[in-house]
Amino acid sequence: MVRIAVDGMGGDFAPQAIVEGAEAAANEGIAEVVLVGDETRMRPFIHNNTRGLEIVHTPVYVEMDESPSTALRKKRDSSINKAFELHKSGRVQAVVSAGNSGAAMAFAIFTLGRIASVDRPVIAVLHPNEGDRLSILLDSGGTVDCKPAQFAQFALMGDALARLVQGINAPRVGILSNGSEDTKGNELTRESHALLKTLDLNYIGYVEGDDITSGRADVVVTDGFVGNIALKVGEGMSEFFLNFFKEHIKKSFKYKVGYLLLKDAFKSLKKKTDYAETGGAPLLGVDGVCIICHGKSNKKAIRNAIVLAKQFVEKNLNGSIQDAMQVCQSLQKAKES
Amino acid sequence: MVRIAVDGMGGDFAPQAIVEGAEAAANEGIAEVVLVGDETRMRPFIHNNTRGLEIVHTPVYVEMDESPSTALRKKRDSSINKAFELHKSGRVQAVVSAGNSGAAMAFAIFTLGRIASVDRPVIAVLHPNEGDRLSILLDSGGTVDCKPAQFAQFALMGDALARLVQGINAPRVGILSNGSEDTKGNELTRESHALLKTLDLNYIGYVEGDDITSGRADVVVTDGFVGNIALKVGEGMSEFFLNFFKEHIKKSFKYKVGYLLLKDAFKSLKKKTDYAETGGAPLLGVDGVCIICHGKSNKKAIRNAIVLAKQFVEKNLNGSIQDAMQVCQSLQKAKES
Repeated sequence: MVRIAVDGMGGDFAPQAIVEGAEAAANEGIAEVVLVGDETRMRPFIHNNTRGLEIVHTPVYVEMDESPSTALRKKRDSSINKAFELHKSGRVQAVVSAGNSGAAMAFAIFTLGRIASVDRPVIAVLHPNEGDRLSILLDSGGTVDCKPAQFAQFALMGDALARLVQGINAPRVGILSNGSEDTKGNELTRESHALLKTLDLNYIGYVEGDDITSGRADVVVTDGFVGNIALKVGEGMSEFFLNFFKEHIKKSFKYKVGYLLLKDAFKSLKKKTDYAETGGAPLLGVDGVCIICHGKSNKKAIRNAIVLAKQFVEKNLNGSIQDAMQVCQSLQKAKES
Repeated sequence: MVRIAVDGMGGDFAPQAIVEGAEAAANEGIAEVVLVGDETRMRPFIHNNTRGLEIVHTPVYVEMDESPSTALRKKRDSSINKAFELHKSGRVQAVVSAGNSGAAMAFAIFTLGRIASVDRPVIAVLHPNEGDRLSILLDSGGTVDCKPAQFAQFALMGDALARLVQGINAPRVGILSNGSEDTKGNELTRESHALLKTLDLNYIGYVEGDDITSGRADVVVTDGFVGNIALKVGEGMSEFFLNFFKEHIKKSFKYKVGYLLLKDAFKSLKKKTDYAETGGAPLLGVDGVCIICHGKSNKKAIRNAIVLAKQFVEKNLNGSIQDAMQVCQSLQKAKES
């Protein structure tokens, strides 16, 4: 059975939500779960009869707002890094964390190392769209100032992930831009646009902000600064809509009845846009499987992140990424020769 | 009465939608409207008894996907530039265009000129939020690669616009970033963040993507690349929501009844998020009043853009922006001395 380490101390609702999600996954037999963190704080939330749940105790943890570089220097024995060390040593095959994502990324790189030819590992968000599939948005927050070569790597890794997750042969890859015409874009996207045309990808050129939900692209490449903003704008708009209806329902009995009749539709919409359903986002390019969860993750999100991690272990995500990155090695060699 | 020139040939639904919107505004006595464009193509949509509507004929116009720099070189006698020439000569006091926004901006700068100390004029979008007011997002698409000094100018112009539009004394100004902590941001925002702290503004620091709708800031400063993407993500999410319900309603009678009961709420939501309601976005920093409309503008959007233009003429938007920019002149002088 797949064994997965979960950072018990990371997340806005840690340790309770994390422990409960981990316990749920273990009880359902999804995976064997190793909870890493402060045992005295996690233990109260664990039921006696839980099978397949182990604790690795460490009292140190990284705060949500701590600087990743400080954490990297001073907190090698933190719960998140201990989890990666378990992965590195082979005791687990994946790590799930809802903690400080910058610190998780820093420790993943430090302890697991990067796959050959990867400059910067990248957080790939699986985003719902109007089609039946998911759009992959990367980078969703890790690297704020990118270079064209990194965009090429993101594109190749995103392509590999789309093949694996969606089971499609030629995922449509686009660069997020301020218009679909070749004349659009900023300095970074223009250079990246030229570079991506030379790669063996189904590159469809620039895509726009609304294409994240339209499903025109399977893989949307951007830097971590824009990626984070795009995701947050989407979250804000979702809240804006749902709050609008909440407020209106209070106003009249007619609205209230209408809402009750549509309640299942609202629920299923909420489900479709709820990050807890996907569980988390894979960190691509580190030598291992790591799922980065939303800081606000609840029990369900953690449980589903463990499901996702298990799938990536079983489908050998890492092997796919390694294969994808060999293209970059060939490019590099061609450049040098 | 205020006289406003409208580019009759600009927009996806030009000339019909433009002419109809202009005619509606003229008929309601909102302003005297000068339609600039190809008379033979616009005339069929004008009714005989329309008062306060004049045509200035020019057969040349800028295509929606034409490069602004090419247009600037080759199409000085285009409808959009003729409109700005009417403004420059004092025959009208404002210009409204739903055409190629890059070309509109280029000609506005060329023909009207910039206000002293403005590097790059900026398109300021009035965005609905959860409060009762509007958030001002700028730049929403004009300048894709910005410098910190331009962010400072955007902030000052946005502040002036917020005072004018919202009637508030100390608008909360924020820089759009990938997190609210000081440690977040990219190279551009970090430098701009330090600079904005030194200005006489109610600067609240970094704001996130969801703050465009949360209403935490009155003015959200960003570059035109990120601004465009943020707006398009929001539009995409709106469509995603509305399409989701449209699809669901087809599925069951219960949903259909629920939708009918909630129909007014859906309508008022659509109204709140519909760009046609605001009409357009002011171009700040040129020496005149110019409203840039969505390419997809319909009759209502053009009519409302004329209302907006009239308000800005009457409230002396340009005077406010000139006053705001004197801060920059003082800063520049202090730097030089």
